[in-house]
Order: sequence, then C-alpha cells, then structure tokens
Amino acid sequence: MASQILPLELIDRCIGSRIWVIMKNDREFTGTLLGFDDFVNMVLEDVIEFEITADGIKKNKLAQTLLNGNNICMLVPGSDGPESHS
Amino acid sequence: MASQILPLELIDRCIGSRIWVIMKNDREFTGTLLGFDDFVNMVLEDVIEFEITADGIKKNKLAQTLLNGNNICMLVPGSDGPESHS
Amino acid sequence: MASQILPLELIDRCIGSRIWVIMKNDREFTGTLLGFDDFVNMVLEDVIEFEITADGIKKNKLAQTLLNGNNICMLVPGSDGPESHS
Amino acid sequence: MASQILPLELIDRCIGSRIWVIMKNDREFTGTLLGFDDFVNMVLEDVIEFEITADGIKKNKLAQTLLNGNNICMLVPGSDGPESHS
Amino acid sequence: MASQILPLELIDRCIGSRIWVIMKNDREFTGTLLGFDDFVNMVLEDVIEFEITADGIKKNKLAQTLLNGNNICMLVPGSDGPESHS
Amino acid sequence: MASQILPLELIDRCIGSRIWVIMKNDREFTGTLLGFDDFVNMVLEDVIEFEITADGIKKNKLAQTLLNGNNICMLVPGSDGPESHS
Amino acid sequence: MASQILPLELIDRCIGSRIWVIMKNDREFTGTLLGFDDFVNMVLEDVIEFEITADGIKKNKLAQTLLNGNNICMLVPGSDGPESHS
Repeated sequence: MASQILPLELIDRCIGSRIWVIMKNDREFTGTLLGFDDFVNMVLEDVIEFEITADGIKKNKLAQTLLNGNNICMLVPGSDGPESHS
Repeated sequence: MASQILPLELIDRCIGSRIWVIMKNDREFTGTLLGFDDFVNMVLEDVIEFEITADGIKKNKLAQTLLNGNNICMLVPGSDGPESHS
Repeated sequence: MASQILPLELIDRCIGSRIWVIMKNDREFTGTLLGFDDFVNMVLEDVIEFEITADGIKKNKLAQTLLNGNNICMLVPGSDGPESHS
Repeated sequence: MASQILPLELIDRCIGSRIWVIMKNDREFTGTLLGFDDFVNMVLEDVIEFEITADGIKKNKLAQTLLNGNNICMLVPGSDGPESHS
Repeated sequence: MASQILPLELIDRCIGSRIWVIMKNDREFTGTLLGFDDFVNMVLEDVIEFEITADGIKKNKLAQTLLNGNNICMLVPGSDGPESHS
Repeated sequence: MASQILPLELIDRCIGSRIWVIMKNDREFTGTLLGFDDFVNMVLEDVIEFEITADGIKKNKLAQTLLNGNNICMLVPGSDGPESHS
Repeated sequence: MASQILPLELIDRCIGSRIWVIMKNDREFTGTLLGFDDFVNMVLEDVIEFEITADGIKKNKLAQTLLNGNNICMLVPGSDGPESHS
C-alpha cells in the first residue's frame, strides 16, 4: 500500500486552523476547528454561515457551533469558503 | 494530537444554559438544555420554536421538549436563535 | 458533569400522561402515552391526529396507535398539540 | 417505572386481528396480522390498499402481503383504515 | 404468543413461485423467486417490470434480476402484479 | 428450505460478464464485472452510462468504475441495458 | 470464485493518481487521491469541482478536500471528469 494521508489524520491536523464545511443540505460554514470525534461531529469557533441567494452570498456570524458529522458532505481545510473559489 | 474540545464535552458544558438547535428539516429551536444522551437526543426547557416565513420570524412557545438527536443538524451554545445573527 | 434529565427518563415520566408527537414527515399526534421501548417506538391511546391544512387544523380521532421511533422528530410532554401554542 | 405496554407486546396482541398500517411513503393498508419479526416486518392477510386521490379513496384488494418494517410509519390496531376516522 | 407466520418464513415458501415486489422508489416487478438472503436481497427470474404511466401500464421483460432488499417496500406472494388488483 | 440461488452467489457468477446496474438515483450503467465486496460495492470495466432524456437515450463511455453498493437499486446480469428491454 | 478486483483494492491502487468522484447529491469532483479509510472517506488534492449548469460546465478549484464516503455514489479512477466523457 502506498503511503497516504488518512481522512481523520487530515482533520486532526486542522485543529486550530480555519476549515470550510459543506453540509448535505447545502448549508456552508467556515470556522476555526476546536475539536471532533469519531463520528466527525465537529466543534467550530468564529463561525461564518454562508447563505447563497440569488442576490449573492449573505454571511451570518456565529460563535461556537457543533455540526452533526452525519450531515457533513465535504471539508476543505484552510479555506475561507465559497467566495475564495471561483 | 493538539488539545481539543470534544463535541459531547461542549454539549455537557451547556447544561443549564440556552442553546440554539437547527434540525435537518430546518425547524429551529432555542431552549435551556436539561440533558442529553449518547445519541445526542436532547431535553430542552422554556423552548421557543422559530418559524421562518415570508413575513418574518414567527415564535411559538413550548415547555419541555425532547428532540431526536438523529434529526439534529447543528447546535449553537449560548445563542438566542436566528434573530441574534445577521 | 452537571445534574441532568436524560431523554429516556423524561419519556418514562410521561407514562399515563398526554404527549404531543411530531413526526419527521410533519404528521402530528397527541395521545396518552402507554409505553415505549429503547428505539423510542411509542404506544399512545386516545389519539388525535392533527392535519394542518390551508383552512385550519383538522382533527382525526384514533384509538391505540403505535409510532415508529425512527420517524419521530420531537416530543412535547403534557401538551395538547399545535392549537395550544401560538 | 410505571407499568406500561411495550410496542412489540401491542403488536403481538394483534395477531389474528385487523390492523391499519401507514407507511413512510404514505401508502396505507388494512389487513389481518399473521406475523411479524424483530424488525417489525409484517405479514398481513385479506389486505386492502387505500389510495387517497382527489376523487376520494380508491381500494385495491391484495391477498397475503409482506411489509418492510423499516418503511412503516405508524400502526393502528383494530382499525378499518382511513374511512373509519374523520 | 399466538401461532404466527414469520416474514422470512413467508418468503421462503415463495421460492419457485411468482411474487410481486414494490420498491421504495415505486418501481414494480413480478418474477419467479429463485433465492434471497438475510437482508431480503432477492433473485428473481422471468421478470416483468411495470411502468405506470399516464397512458396505462407499460411492461418490460427482464431475465434474472437481483433486487436490493434495503430498497424493497412490500411483497405480494403469488400475485401477477398491478393489473390483477383493482 | 427449497434449493435456491443466493444473491451474492448470483453476483459472483457474473464476474467477467456484462451486467446492468440501476442506482437508487436512477443512474444506469452496463459494464463487465471485475469484482465486488460484502457491501456489494462493485468494480466495472468498459462501462457505458445511460442518460435517459426526452430525446432518447444518450450514452457516455467510462473505463473502470466503482459503484457504492449502498446506492444500488437493482442488477440485471448478462444485460446490455435499457435499450435491450422494451 | 473467479479471480477479481476488490473495490478497496481498486481505490488503493489510485493513491497518487487522478480520480473522478460523483456524490449522491450530484456534486462532481476530480482530484489526486491522497488517502482513504474503511468508510471510503477520501482525501483529494488539486481538486476541481464541476458545476453542471444550463450554460455548460463551470469549474471551481479547491486545495485539499475531504469527502464523506457515505455520500459518494461512484468513482472513476484516472478520469479528468465530466468533460472527458461524451
């Protein structure tokens, strides 16, 4: 087997850093990762929720937020969210 | 591994405090957290349900309420709900 | 850990009392709780189903009813259902 | 713990009697319960399927039918189905 | 406990006979049951798929077909499918 | 119990042969089966994806493809796909 | 049993190579596979997300990305994504 980066190892390296999270229901968040568990439930801090509307992206600020790992679709470590990719 | 806050540890710290819960079906509640279990089923007290309608946010008051953890999308400890973030 | 009310403990206290149940598919019921199991499957008696229509709330009476716990979204002990909260 | 009726106990008492079953996808059946297993898969006999249409309720007769317990939303023992409740 | 017919026992009796299968996504099949496993995955032979369209029922013939048990909603042993019930 | 063909046994016999796979989200593929595991994840080769559009069936060619067993609805061994059944 | 390629074996061979991933919610990505785990959670690098719109395919570039295996529908090793198949 080739040397590889395991998914949980990647998440663990992100603790203390910004991460972009896209949920299965298309909600999107960025925040500083404070912790996670084996179900990839995640605790984020200094969170921004992005609402993608017809008029552009609207941002809501949240403090500490816990996301249900079962509802997470994808993670992008080190990203500032949907505005930084186009 | 960096020092971190585990998700269940964050919920445990919230007992006795207000919490904002957003369900997978977009129902939203705030309440005082009375307890939870390993499936993150939650007991809330002094609950407000927020209905987001075209005319604004409508509030319904509920007493003790039990939420199915399997249906929870995200939690925001210490928050007064959708009106306090914009 | 702070002293807390566990979700199953709350349900157990409701046996013999009225309870309002909202399903994941938005069906709503009130009834007297006769019993439940570890999957939160519930047996209710003297059940009223609430159909929320454009013309208001329509009620259907049912006798003993068994609800699949996997399909339950939330429970409100002691409540008379959607009409008593507004 | 108060004395209670367990969900599987209620189903067991229904063997040989009529039962009304509402599936998660809103299909509705009545039939005589012949048996069930731990997943609440059910065998019914002399089954009537109710199709709720804009023109009223249409009935289809089926002989023995097996229902996937995972897809069942609720059960009403002793009921003749949607027409008997209104 | 009353004497009863277990769901898997009913399926086992159907081996070699025609069976009508309705999937959760409303696809419908009849076929001769060749085998099944504990997940109620099923092998059918001489299969007819029924497409229910606005113009009536359209039939497609298939040879051996394997159906994912997890996606099955209900089974009607001995039936020739939707045309034989009305 | 009557002699029967187990579902995994049927799949195992298909290795090296063409198979038609219909996913839960209605995507359809044919390909040569190279392998599978206990979750019925499948490896196909010389794959054709069928897009059923209002203008007829459009085909896309793919090389080796891995399908998530959890998302598979049905399998038809030996079939050339939707065009060969009507 | 015929000699075969196991699904996880195919993924393991892809480490260090390009792979095309199609999610259950129809999001599509290509990237270099850095690692995966038993749940087929995947770490990709140099990721392109493909948005299929009425005006054609729009591409977004992402750095390292983690995809939830539970949400993956299919994988095509060695592919450059939707543009290379038609």
